[in-house]
Amino acid sequence: MKEIKIGVIGSGSTYNPELIEGLLKRREELPVAEIALMDINPERLEITGALAERMVKKAGVNTRVIKTLDRKVAMDGADFVITQIRVGLMEGRARDERIPLEFGVIGQETTGPGGFSMALRTIPVMLEIGREMEKLSPNGWMINFTNPSGLVTEALNHHTKMRMIGLCNSPITLQNRLATLFNISKDRIWMDYFGLNHLSFISKVFLDGDDVTAEVIKRISEGDARELPGYPFNPTVLKALGMIPNGYLQFFYHRDKLLEKLMSSPGRAETVMKIDGELLELYKDPNLNEKPKILEQRGGAWYSDAACALISAMVNDKKEVHIVNVKNQGAIGGLGAEDVVEVPALIKRSGAYPVVMGEMPLSVRALIQTVKTYELLTVKAAVEGSRDAAILALVNHPLVPSVDIAEQLFNRILEENREWLPQFK
Amino acid sequence: MKEIKIGVIGSGSTYNPELIEGLLKRREELPVAEIALMDINPERLEITGALAERMVKKAGVNTRVIKTLDRKVAMDGADFVITQIRVGLMEGRARDERIPLEFGVIGQETTGPGGFSMALRTIPVMLEIGREMEKLSPNGWMINFTNPSGLVTEALNHHTKMRMIGLCNSPITLQNRLATLFNISKDRIWMDYFGLNHLSFISKVFLDGDDVTAEVIKRISEGDARELPGYPFNPTVLKALGMIPNGYLQFFYHRDKLLEKLMSSPGRAETVMKIDGELLELYKDPNLNEKPKILEQRGGAWYSDAACALISAMVNDKKEVHIVNVKNQGAIGGLGAEDVVEVPALIKRSGAYPVVMGEMPLSVRALIQTVKTYELLTVKAAVEGSRDAAILALVNHPLVPSVDIAEQLFNRILEENREWLPQFK
Amino acid sequence: MKEIKIGVIGSGSTYNPELIEGLLKRREELPVAEIALMDINPERLEITGALAERMVKKAGVNTRVIKTLDRKVAMDGADFVITQIRVGLMEGRARDERIPLEFGVIGQETTGPGGFSMALRTIPVMLEIGREMEKLSPNGWMINFTNPSGLVTEALNHHTKMRMIGLCNSPITLQNRLATLFNISKDRIWMDYFGLNHLSFISKVFLDGDDVTAEVIKRISEGDARELPGYPFNPTVLKALGMIPNGYLQFFYHRDKLLEKLMSSPGRAETVMKIDGELLELYKDPNLNEKPKILEQRGGAWYSDAACALISAMVNDKKEVHIVNVKNQGAIGGLGAEDVVEVPALIKRSGAYPVVMGEMPLSVRALIQTVKTYELLTVKAAVEGSRDAAILALVNHPLVPSVDIAEQLFNRILEENREWLPQFK
Amino acid sequence: MKEIKIGVIGSGSTYNPELIEGLLKRREELPVAEIALMDINPERLEITGALAERMVKKAGVNTRVIKTLDRKVAMDGADFVITQIRVGLMEGRARDERIPLEFGVIGQETTGPGGFSMALRTIPVMLEIGREMEKLSPNGWMINFTNPSGLVTEALNHHTKMRMIGLCNSPITLQNRLATLFNISKDRIWMDYFGLNHLSFISKVFLDGDDVTAEVIKRISEGDARELPGYPFNPTVLKALGMIPNGYLQFFYHRDKLLEKLMSSPGRAETVMKIDGELLELYKDPNLNEKPKILEQRGGAWYSDAACALISAMVNDKKEVHIVNVKNQGAIGGLGAEDVVEVPALIKRSGAYPVVMGEMPLSVRALIQTVKTYELLTVKAAVEGSRDAAILALVNHPLVPSVDIAEQLFNRILEENREWLPQFK
Repeated sequence: MKEIKIGVIGSGSTYNPELIEGLLKRREELPVAEIALMDINPERLEITGALAERMVKKAGVNTRVIKTLDRKVAMDGADFVITQIRVGLMEGRARDERIPLEFGVIGQETTGPGGFSMALRTIPVMLEIGREMEKLSPNGWMINFTNPSGLVTEALNHHTKMRMIGLCNSPITLQNRLATLFNISKDRIWMDYFGLNHLSFISKVFLDGDDVTAEVIKRISEGDARELPGYPFNPTVLKALGMIPNGYLQFFYHRDKLLEKLMSSPGRAETVMKIDGELLELYKDPNLNEKPKILEQRGGAWYSDAACALISAMVNDKKEVHIVNVKNQGAIGGLGAEDVVEVPALIKRSGAYPVVMGEMPLSVRALIQTVKTYELLTVKAAVEGSRDAAILALVNHPLVPSVDIAEQLFNRILEENREWLPQFK
Repeated sequence: MKEIKIGVIGSGSTYNPELIEGLLKRREELPVAEIALMDINPERLEITGALAERMVKKAGVNTRVIKTLDRKVAMDGADFVITQIRVGLMEGRARDERIPLEFGVIGQETTGPGGFSMALRTIPVMLEIGREMEKLSPNGWMINFTNPSGLVTEALNHHTKMRMIGLCNSPITLQNRLATLFNISKDRIWMDYFGLNHLSFISKVFLDGDDVTAEVIKRISEGDARELPGYPFNPTVLKALGMIPNGYLQFFYHRDKLLEKLMSSPGRAETVMKIDGELLELYKDPNLNEKPKILEQRGGAWYSDAACALISAMVNDKKEVHIVNVKNQGAIGGLGAEDVVEVPALIKRSGAYPVVMGEMPLSVRALIQTVKTYELLTVKAAVEGSRDAAILALVNHPLVPSVDIAEQLFNRILEENREWLPQFK
Repeated sequence: MKEIKIGVIGSGSTYNPELIEGLLKRREELPVAEIALMDINPERLEITGALAERMVKKAGVNTRVIKTLDRKVAMDGADFVITQIRVGLMEGRARDERIPLEFGVIGQETTGPGGFSMALRTIPVMLEIGREMEKLSPNGWMINFTNPSGLVTEALNHHTKMRMIGLCNSPITLQNRLATLFNISKDRIWMDYFGLNHLSFISKVFLDGDDVTAEVIKRISEGDARELPGYPFNPTVLKALGMIPNGYLQFFYHRDKLLEKLMSSPGRAETVMKIDGELLELYKDPNLNEKPKILEQRGGAWYSDAACALISAMVNDKKEVHIVNVKNQGAIGGLGAEDVVEVPALIKRSGAYPVVMGEMPLSVRALIQTVKTYELLTVKAAVEGSRDAAILALVNHPLVPSVDIAEQLFNRILEENREWLPQFK
Repeated sequence: MKEIKIGVIGSGSTYNPELIEGLLKRREELPVAEIALMDINPERLEITGALAERMVKKAGVNTRVIKTLDRKVAMDGADFVITQIRVGLMEGRARDERIPLEFGVIGQETTGPGGFSMALRTIPVMLEIGREMEKLSPNGWMINFTNPSGLVTEALNHHTKMRMIGLCNSPITLQNRLATLFNISKDRIWMDYFGLNHLSFISKVFLDGDDVTAEVIKRISEGDARELPGYPFNPTVLKALGMIPNGYLQFFYHRDKLLEKLMSSPGRAETVMKIDGELLELYKDPNLNEKPKILEQRGGAWYSDAACALISAMVNDKKEVHIVNVKNQGAIGGLGAEDVVEVPALIKRSGAYPVVMGEMPLSVRALIQTVKTYELLTVKAAVEGSRDAAILALVNHPLVPSVDIAEQLFNRILEENREWLPQFK
């Protein structure tokens, strides 16, 4: 069995122990010769790297742990490169969430105008990384976690020749929670699933092969959805849809309630920064040699599990189905063949083969097409530094209520992110 | 030269004299043997019919004028049937415009939720008419003016086998106003034009074959658009689009301003009802034998001219280009082959052949796809009496801000239009 | 574990012991409560049925074996109905292969004009069966073996509401032979595969996840393809294609050689009839209680294995990939969403989900589109009894060299199959 | 009125007097300041140029006639560049028609394998011309007559940024002959028309706006088609199609008869060369100052008329419909948006807007898709010098009966055209 090299770009993330744990848990089926941790922040690199070393040591495996400030070292010859960067750091996210609120618009750091702002900062950096990887690891795979994941994956698929899969913890979280709803193990749940990252629908849920969609909708409508993230939803609309929306759909379907909530409570960025600081402190403890429980409150549970499971499916040519972000190629009717979508795919050594989900229902098709259009315009804006494309992206965003606000919002984002957006001359 | 029969369903409209004038003006190229006027209101039928008789007499032509309360008489053997009905009358329109405002939503009687309400009332009646026409005039053409024109034409194209063309005065008005902007005759203006009724864009304007689009946008942006209906628009966005939006796009692009305006000023329905009453009084004058000038204030200028020009182009197999509402069939990339669109078409005796306008620009594609989706769901709701489809239609409408409001709005519309909406059990 | 009922329509086939063997082999994972054998020929039913009973008895399982002349009994409440009928019997096949040769045209009983003739006879009967099954087994699945399988599956998918999967032994045979070529077990081979039944291409072969397509093509070109059915092919063209054609492609790519061969040697129908008779004799032996080895010469090896594996994958919701004939739905770019194709699909209890194979290469796209067109016209002809559609089907068939021959060929087929083709008035 | 410059590449053609006559006939609506005649053969240039000068002089117009051996002079600043070259001269055509016959395959110099051979020689030269024109006449239009016209237009549309329209005399000839059939003027005939150059169908014929398609098919079937080029066709198939095929379809529909005929009679190239020589002799006469009648026997009647009418429609922004070869853009359903097709188009100063012809009928769709595929592969072969693409092009050609012959045929074509095909290393 061939041993692999994994590179991690942005390993200073406090998520890092989860990834290390995920790899160690799979040591039998997924032998890792080298894991190269890279971050631009020497202190975070050192803290998270040292913890990784202690975890590896405790597990008693032979994996070499490299800590580097040079991303080329991490990518060079890697079989898999995991990217989890945050351009502009958590302070950037705070701005992304705050500025739209000034205009009475939901920010939302992935699927909302906050994600737009983040994408403008992030895409140029990710493209650089992608182009380096084309050379340093031409046969490797990028597994991208970097948010806004849909936009980043869209950009890299169109502007680099690298092989990549975009990954999000949303699908695996939904599957886990549905399993909890029925009090069974998650392997017994199958979801027919289509859409974009953070803009997806479960068109059908199966339990042991039997269709339980109506049952799930009924239980959600009766308030029995504590387990599902981002719920509740209007029951009449849920029943009319006959599908289970990703929790992020709340930002579109219940924008009035969400806006009210966001107006009155501090943004999530502040909370996350606080937890993040506490975690880092914890990681410094030289006796800590495993993932601390408290990490699960951080909000990104199952991220690393999803990644490690995906990598193992590829390495072992498992032909398992994972829900990933890849080019559509006809799997979802109503989106372009080249559009990046979030869809179940058969995972082989040679890549991800989307499984056909059929024509999108009329009831949600337009929303998904609209957000894809917004994504394509945002990618264009980010890559070309086109103000026109940027404004038109916001004009098309369902959360932006008028073209005047689109223009003003873009100007404010540019003003507050000047140093991160050199592409806009 | 074969003489034709024209049937008019809803001839009690105060627009009727304009139609009669349009026909008389073209008497040489378009000889009319019989014009059968039908209305459900005997008084309006008599008033407008008598004026039509006086106009015909003054012109000295041989056209037989029939006044009838039975629409079958009007359709029987007609070469063209002009439909211009208003189910629920002007009072219905007033409700259509008012109810959404209660929820802080623009009503707008054609392209907004007001049009949705109107469509639910109107489509079942128009389908009955269409099915009668299939039998009574299998080789005739319906020319539809009935609003909301896009939705009505969509419904009839999919649920009857009749031959029909939907017509609106928007395109001809835009062409006339562009001509005025350049102080030239309208025949020297050509518009590359695509979209849906009241949701269209002029992608290019040509003057004597030369592209003057940039010049038009510049003049509009400099405030020189007094002549264009529904203007102004945000100049930055206009320039980024590089196209000229139909004035009705204001409801989408500047919904905040428009909503504010509609909140504070009485709806247009009241104004129109007032003018309408005054016109009817005027028409009673037994000495009046021509179209009164004041009719042009009514807002529907060039409607009849568009209709008469279209009918003459068909009768005379002119192969002229008119902008009409017909099935797309590939003319506009990004919309379905069966979707009804508003597009330039070559007019022959045998029908309207759309002229290819190409792929929709990314900047406006999603909006047009969204409104078409809303239209398809609305037609489904109107035809099947499906509450689910009705609510999902509003969920998809860009002017409806949340699914809760979609549900409440539909319930209110249903409540206030109970007698007109028997299809919803 | 729920026990299932399987119905077999056309169980008098000498293949039947293979099916029984396949089921018995899987008794642990696939418990069969009842297998209902039906045939229109009482003698064949009795012979094959008695052998089935002996085999079941020997295996010591509880399966009830029913022998019936009434297909409704076989279908009633069945979880799976296997259809393997031959309208017009083997004599019909002999005619199908002979008549085209009179015109210097290859017959070929599935993908050639012989298959056309067979389809005209078979489709109306299969539609009757399908419509009965809609009622008798609304939740059951038809697994169709009836040839011409592509045409029959196309017809039933469009003209019944039944759930069905078309199955052929071609893909599994190719996979087995590729495994033999590398001297490995078949599970280590994966084929990227697309096309129609008997008109398919392996676009990529993987061995343990590694792409070995070029190696396979090289070995085939060097004559090392004894193992692959229907080979050899022109090596220059094979290399230019970069794909491995199904052996049946020989009829199109090497029609001159094949025609010469068929002209000089007796048709396959005669050979098959001879073996068939011998097998039936053998089956009569009351001491025979297992599948005789000689059956494998019959040409349909792996048929039953494919069927039993498929049924087990469905019953057990295995999410395995099988290559089956189902609606395209976007899996293969360049064919319609509704077109039945042969494609890898994920098999669940709830059905077969095609796996995306992407856009067809330009090099073979037109041939596949042409044969699909021929199929659609043939189905139309068979269902409507349309002579025009029948002649146009043959006009479009790549093996028919001129429209005059298309017309004459159809007339001869009709003349010689008069009693079987009542739909052509 | 702006006077225009016309460049003619390949003006040594004996068609040239027809072009000059066409321009002179339209002098009022189409004032030509300069016509620049270019040919690589000085003698032919001089003969045809001198005749052009005498014709211009006789007409008494101010047009400057330039004779040049340098094509850049002809293109520089031209408003229209007419290309009518023949790479390899008439001797090349003779080879193109002869080589396939050696393999029992119809040659046919445009739509058959003869056209394939011609395309390999011609496309590289036409691409050079196209790229020069991009610079020398960036706002001008190329009107291409160079055969094989479909393939050349396809190549130039995809590999240059030039504006161009491909023109053929087939459509105008069909229209003229249909007019003759009814003994009326051609303006009263309209054809619904779709397909590729020399592979097109008239789906409907209208006389004064009335559908006379059935009448035309009936008269053709009764043998009354002396007037239509390339007829007769099998009447049963004609009736089943319900359309009128372009005469060139005979090569596909009646390949057996055509092959027999071509096998026994000398190729058309010899005949044409003979007439060509006679014409040139005639043109030398210093007293000849008009187009000689005998030119009409040359076979290309109405070519120049089509070109001059098209140029005038553009210059005068006439919005007339002409049948031309341009990008499909959705006009014909079943072909790609970028595929060059032959279709009615509205002609404006700014270009040709295809008129929607709708979905292709199933009966002919596959043939047209197949030939388009062959064209795309041929263009690829010609541009890239790819032997694989060349062989696959022939493998896809409906007239090539096997892949072995495809390979051998390409090798022979390459061998006999060595000096003209430097792109194949």
